[in-house]
Amino acid sequence: MSVKLYYDLLSQPSRSLFIFLKKAQVPFEPCLVNLGKGEHLKKEYLENVSRIPKVPVVHDGDFRLNESVGIVRYISRQYPVEDHWYPKDSKKQALADEYLEWHHLNVRVNCSTYFIKTWLNPMKTGKQPSEEEVGKAKKYMEKSLQDFQDYFLSNGKFINGNQISYSDIHAACEIEQTRVAGYDARDHFPKIKQWIEAVREECNPHYDRAHQFINLLSQKAEDPKSKL
Amino acid sequence: MSVKLYYDLLSQPSRSLFIFLKKAQVPFEPCLVNLGKGEHLKKEYLENVSRIPKVPVVHDGDFRLNESVGIVRYISRQYPVEDHWYPKDSKKQALADEYLEWHHLNVRVNCSTYFIKTWLNPMKTGKQPSEEEVGKAKKYMEKSLQDFQDYFLSNGKFINGNQISYSDIHAACEIEQTRVAGYDARDHFPKIKQWIEAVREECNPHYDRAHQFINLLSQKAEDPKSKL
Repeated sequence: MSVKLYYDLLSQPSRSLFIFLKKAQVPFEPCLVNLGKGEHLKKEYLENVSRIPKVPVVHDGDFRLNESVGIVRYISRQYPVEDHWYPKDSKKQALADEYLEWHHLNVRVNCSTYFIKTWLNPMKTGKQPSEEEVGKAKKYMEKSLQDFQDYFLSNGKFINGNQISYSDIHAACEIEQTRVAGYDARDHFPKIKQWIEAVREECNPHYDRAHQFINLLSQKAEDPKSKL
Repeated sequence: MSVKLYYDLLSQPSRSLFIFLKKAQVPFEPCLVNLGKGEHLKKEYLENVSRIPKVPVVHDGDFRLNESVGIVRYISRQYPVEDHWYPKDSKKQALADEYLEWHHLNVRVNCSTYFIKTWLNPMKTGKQPSEEEVGKAKKYMEKSLQDFQDYFLSNGKFINGNQISYSDIHAACEIEQTRVAGYDARDHFPKIKQWIEAVREECNPHYDRAHQFINLLSQKAEDPKSKL
């Protein structure tokens, strides 16, 4: 019996979990949830998949679990996953957790706010944000990216040293998202550029597979006349 | 040798970590960091305590660790802590993690945004927020509190069943903070009221000790003429 993964590759943590499961060779049954169509809000989803209207979710037999970071920890205990993805050594695990917890209120909240304000909301409502709103969202995002580079990319090729871990995938998938809104962190932060290319290389072909639609949307942001 | 805890009881995760260490009987050396005086921003702090200008931080010998949730996980592995605070059973631990991860972008971000916009920023700048800003912050906060009540307080006395865990302390300390800004979640959400009273009862005298200053500031919010 394999786990069931409920996901949409437009969601950052869905992509990171998808790439992790592929790279860690944990067999899973893919169950697509179309966020654009609001499938996660339907009664059927809330009853049969998750009480919380979000993705990603995994089912492991009867056991249902939300929240990507908690899911990675659970999968790493339950399945034979190479140690470097989420180390068992107590101090190494604590340093992996340090990034994964810091991520939420920094890279996650500020990159996704920029994406939502400058791309998602205008797409949904047809209303453009004010220059002041965009400027504020950009300032917070760039502060988080600078902090990320300073605090977490100073001691090796990856966040927790010279071996890739789930933290790298988790951070990279969030930072990739803003390309859809026309902001590529690689153009502004040289260490992020080097690191994200290393993460992509380690995780391909799954990294590119997961980012296929994000890449198409980014081309559209670069050239609004391109066919999509 | 005991751990050193760097903290300020005005910070929500500092309080939750303080209460957890006291209740779990983990000996620690208290090291106060005065956020109001900007002690966490000083060169000495960044060199000798933490590269990230935040509290709480623990030092366990030479090992330095940021992020309260990661710290609780680490302490629970390294020290003899009663299992219910952060369970070792894989599925129980996963459900504890589910709340602790969900917390960041819901209860944490929305309660603290309300606190910052309606109390902290006006106190620092002398400038009051617009009615629109307050209304928006309140709407998001109340949505998170409603979700918290619906998703996490429906299956027992506490978040993960009938035994208290670190998740309860972590959530309660965040929800208490908005009282300083004149918003008491207990007046609006009956299940939260019942639950927070149970958390306080389980964690006293440490809960009241940690909230001493928050309680004083809340009285001030209720009666601006009171002496403080």
